[in-house]
Amino acid sequence: MEFTVEQIAQMLNGEVKGDKYLNINQLAKIEEGSTGTISFLANPKYEHYIYTTKATAVIVDQQFRPKKAYLTTLILVEDAYAAFTTLLQEYQKILAQNKQGIEQPSFISATAKIGSDVYIGAFSYIGEHCTIGNNVKIYPNVTIADASVIGDNCIIYSGVKIYHNTVIGNNCTIHSNAVIGADGFGFAPQADGAFATIPQLGNVILENNISIGANTTVDRATIGSTILREGVKIDNLVQIAHNVEIGKNTVIAALTGISGSTKVGENCKIGGQVGMAGHITVADNTIVTAQSGITKTVRQSGRIMAGSPAQDSHNNLKSQVLYKNLPKIEQRIRAIEEKLNEQ
Amino acid sequence: MEFTVEQIAQMLNGEVKGDKYLNINQLAKIEEGSTGTISFLANPKYEHYIYTTKATAVIVDQQFRPKKAYLTTLILVEDAYAAFTTLLQEYQKILAQNKQGIEQPSFISATAKIGSDVYIGAFSYIGEHCTIGNNVKIYPNVTIADASVIGDNCIIYSGVKIYHNTVIGNNCTIHSNAVIGADGFGFAPQADGAFATIPQLGNVILENNISIGANTTVDRATIGSTILREGVKIDNLVQIAHNVEIGKNTVIAALTGISGSTKVGENCKIGGQVGMAGHITVADNTIVTAQSGITKTVRQSGRIMAGSPAQDSHNNLKSQVLYKNLPKIEQRIRAIEEKLNEQ
Amino acid sequence: MEFTVEQIAQMLNGEVKGDKYLNINQLAKIEEGSTGTISFLANPKYEHYIYTTKATAVIVDQQFRPKKAYLTTLILVEDAYAAFTTLLQEYQKILAQNKQGIEQPSFISATAKIGSDVYIGAFSYIGEHCTIGNNVKIYPNVTIADASVIGDNCIIYSGVKIYHNTVIGNNCTIHSNAVIGADGFGFAPQADGAFATIPQLGNVILENNISIGANTTVDRATIGSTILREGVKIDNLVQIAHNVEIGKNTVIAALTGISGSTKVGENCKIGGQVGMAGHITVADNTIVTAQSGITKTVRQSGRIMAGSPAQDSHNNLKSQVLYKNLPKIEQRIRAIEEKLNEQ
Repeated sequence: MEFTVEQIAQMLNGEVKGDKYLNINQLAKIEEGSTGTISFLANPKYEHYIYTTKATAVIVDQQFRPKKAYLTTLILVEDAYAAFTTLLQEYQKILAQNKQGIEQPSFISATAKIGSDVYIGAFSYIGEHCTIGNNVKIYPNVTIADASVIGDNCIIYSGVKIYHNTVIGNNCTIHSNAVIGADGFGFAPQADGAFATIPQLGNVILENNISIGANTTVDRATIGSTILREGVKIDNLVQIAHNVEIGKNTVIAALTGISGSTKVGENCKIGGQVGMAGHITVADNTIVTAQSGITKTVRQSGRIMAGSPAQDSHNNLKSQVLYKNLPKIEQRIRAIEEKLNEQ
Repeated sequence: MEFTVEQIAQMLNGEVKGDKYLNINQLAKIEEGSTGTISFLANPKYEHYIYTTKATAVIVDQQFRPKKAYLTTLILVEDAYAAFTTLLQEYQKILAQNKQGIEQPSFISATAKIGSDVYIGAFSYIGEHCTIGNNVKIYPNVTIADASVIGDNCIIYSGVKIYHNTVIGNNCTIHSNAVIGADGFGFAPQADGAFATIPQLGNVILENNISIGANTTVDRATIGSTILREGVKIDNLVQIAHNVEIGKNTVIAALTGISGSTKVGENCKIGGQVGMAGHITVADNTIVTAQSGITKTVRQSGRIMAGSPAQDSHNNLKSQVLYKNLPKIEQRIRAIEEKLNEQ
Repeated sequence: MEFTVEQIAQMLNGEVKGDKYLNINQLAKIEEGSTGTISFLANPKYEHYIYTTKATAVIVDQQFRPKKAYLTTLILVEDAYAAFTTLLQEYQKILAQNKQGIEQPSFISATAKIGSDVYIGAFSYIGEHCTIGNNVKIYPNVTIADASVIGDNCIIYSGVKIYHNTVIGNNCTIHSNAVIGADGFGFAPQADGAFATIPQLGNVILENNISIGANTTVDRATIGSTILREGVKIDNLVQIAHNVEIGKNTVIAALTGISGSTKVGENCKIGGQVGMAGHITVADNTIVTAQSGITKTVRQSGRIMAGSPAQDSHNNLKSQVLYKNLPKIEQRIRAIEEKLNEQ
C-alpha cells in the first residue's frame, strides 16, 4: 500500500511544499523518520527534529515558519495533530483485518441470538439467552455468560470474561482479560470470626462508546447495577467495585480503584493509582492527580484534587514542598529555641 | 417466581405491619423500590427513604418507630440487615442456574480423577493426575495444570489459571482470570548485570472457604508453600507473592500487594492499595487503612495502622492534619523569626 | 528420584562433613527440614536453625564454624546460596514435565510457521502469518494474534493474550493471563466533551531473556514500538503503557505503573506500587523504593529515589521521620509562641 505525498495532502486538505510525487508507505515519529515515511510536527518542543528528520514528508501547521534548512517535504494543514490523527484512522481502516464469520470450535448456546456480520473466534463461549448485536467482533477464548446482551459494533478482545446478565451498549471496546460482572466483595462477619458471602444479585451496565482496558475488573452490584455511563474510558488494571456509577465521558488511568457504591461525576479525569473510598460522591469535572486518595465526598465541580488524603492541588503542592523542607524547618525551630534559651 | 409478603415474613421469622397479601417478585435498594419489590432499612442514615419508597415491602428492625406516614408494608424482624442477607441467599439459590455435566469440547486428562455432580465448561483443561472434588463447578476457558487438587463444592469461574501442584480446599470460590501458582518473582544477580531465574519449586495451598477476586495473583513458593488459611477473602487485582502466609479469616481489599515471605495474622482487615514489605510479620487483628505501606513487623495484636510508612492510625491522623497545615506552620515560624529579629 | 549426600556434594563441588551415604529425595527450608531433605544456610540470621534442623543434609559456606552440636550432615561449598540455586535448577530440569506436541483441539492458522520441538496446549490459538520458534511451549487457552513472532525457547503460560504484530525474542517467559500489545490509552477530546479513540498502530517488542509476570499488561505503541530490552524482569500486575522503553536488566516489582512514552534506564530496580509520570526519562542504575511516585526526569545515574513525589531517599527518610513527629514540632512552636507572648 503506497501513496504519493500529493494523494495524502488531498486527503488532509493540505498544501504541499516540496516534491509532491514522492512515495509514502509508512507512518513514523519525527525523530525516527526514514525514507518512505510520513510524520508530523505539532509540539514546538520538537521543532529541532524537522531540520534533521529523514522522513520523506512531515505534516505541519500552516503557521509553521522554518528557521533553518530542512530536507523533507512539508504538508501544511490547519491542525497538524488532528490531521495526523485522521491519517492514523484511515491507515487503521485499511489495515483492519476485517475478521468475519464463526471459527470452529466455538460454543454458541442454541438459545443465544447472534446479529449479522459478526466475528466469533475459536474457543469462545456464548451462554444461554445471550444477545449479540450486529457487526460485533468476539476474539478467541472469550466467555460471555448466560443472559448477557452485547450491542452493535462492539469489539471484545481475546480472553475477556463477561458474567451473566451483563448489559453492554453499542460501540464498546473491551481489551483482553478484562472481567466484567464478577461478584462484588461483600462478606458479612459471623459470630465465630468467619465471613459469610453476601450474594451479589445485581449486574453491570456499560452504556455506549465505552472503552475498558486489559485486565480491568468491573464488579456486579449487590442489588441494582454497577453503571458506566456513555463515553467512559478506563485504562488497564483498574478496579471498579460493586454498585459504583461512573459519569459520562469520565476517564480513569491505570491501577486506580473505586470502592463500592461510590458515584463519580461526568467529565472527570482520574489519574493512575488513585484510590477512592466507598459510599462517596465526586462532582462533575473533578481532576484527581496520580496516587491520590479521595476519602470524602467532593461536592464542588471542577476542583483539582491531590494527595492522600486528597486536598486542593495547589494547597497540596505547598505542603509537598514544605514536606521536602521539613529538615530545614526543624532546624529553624531549633535555632529559635537556642536563641530563646540564651536570652 | 412470586411470593406474598406473608410468605417472606414467615421465612424470616418476622411480623407483618400492613397488607400481607401483596405480591413480591424482586429485591431492590430502598431508594430504587417499585411495585412488587422488597427492600430493607438497617442504617438509620437512610430512614428518610422509608417515607417515600415505592417498594411494596420493607424489612425493618423490631425497634423501628416511624416518625411520619409511609406507604409501604413493613416486615419487623430482629435484625433487618441479617434478614435481608438471608433473603438474598434464598433468592440466589432459586436463581442459581444449576450447571451440571461436562460440555464439549473440553480437555480432561485420562489420569485426572473427577468427582460426582461436577460442571466442566467447554474449552476448560484439566491436566494429568489432577483431582477434582464433588459438586465442583469449573466454568469455560479454565486451565488446571498437572497434579493439582480441588476440594468439594468449589466454584472456579471462567478464565482462572491454576498452575501445577496447587492444593485447594473445600468451598472455595475463585473469580475470573485469577492466577494461582505462577512463579514467584525470584532472580539472582549475575556478574554481568543480568539476572538468572531462581526456579520456583514450591506450590500454593488454599485452605477451605476461601474467596479469590478477579485478576488476583497468588504466586507459588520458591520451596515450601504459599498458604492462605481457612476463610481468607481476597478482592480483585491483589498480588500475593511467593512464600506468603495469610492467617484465618483475614480480608484483603483490591490492588494490595503482599511481598515475599511475609506472614499476615488472623482476622486482619487490609484496605485497598496497601503494600507490605517482604519478610515481615503482621500480628492478628491488625487493621491497615487504604494506601498504607507496612514496612516493618507489627508485633502487637489489634493495632490500626495508617500511612506510608505506616504508624498508629491516630498518630497518623494528627500528622495528616498538620501536613495539610504546613503552610500555616511555616508562617508561624516566620512570624517568630521576625519578632526575634526585631528584638 | 533419590541421590546420596555424596552425589549431591560432587555435583556442587563441595566437601561432606558427616555421613555421605545418606539418601536425599527433596529440598526444604532449614526450619522445615525432615528426614530425606536437603537445605542450605546462607544468612547468619538463620544460623540457630542448624542446631535443631531435622534435614538430612545442609549446604553451608566453607567458612561456617558451628558454635554448638548439630545432628545434620554438612556439605561445605564456596557459596551456599549459589550452590543451592544450582541444586534448584538441576532439580527443576529433572521435574520439568517435558511437554511436547500439539494437543487437540487447538487452532493453528494455515499461514503460521511453527518451529521444531514445540508444545501447543489445547484451546490455544495461533493467528495468521505468526512465526513460532523452536522449543517453544505454549500452554492451553493462549491467544497469539496475527503476524506475531515468538523466538526460540519461550514459555507462554496458560491464558496469555498476545495482540497482532508483537515481536518476542528468545528465552522469554510470560506468565498466565498477561496481556501483550493491547491498545495504548489514547483518546482525543472532542468539542462535545466525548473522546475519540486514537488508533494505536505500533507494536510491542520484547527482546531476549525477558520475564513477564501474571496479569501484567504491556500496551502497544501509538506509532513505533513499546520496547523491553534484553533481560528485563517484570513482576505481576504491572502496567507498561504505550511507547515506554525499559532498559536492559531492569527489574520492576508488582502493581507498578509506567505511563506513556517514559524511558527507564538499564539496571534499574523499581519497587512495588511505584508510579511514573509520562514522557520522562529515568537514568541507568536508579533504585525506586516501593509506593514512590516519579514525577520528573531523573538525570543522574545511581540515585535512590523515595516518596511521592520522589526525592533522594536519605532526604525522604528525614522528612518521613519529621512527618511522624509533626505533632511534637507543632508543640515546640506553640511553646515558643507562648514564651514570646509572656515576654
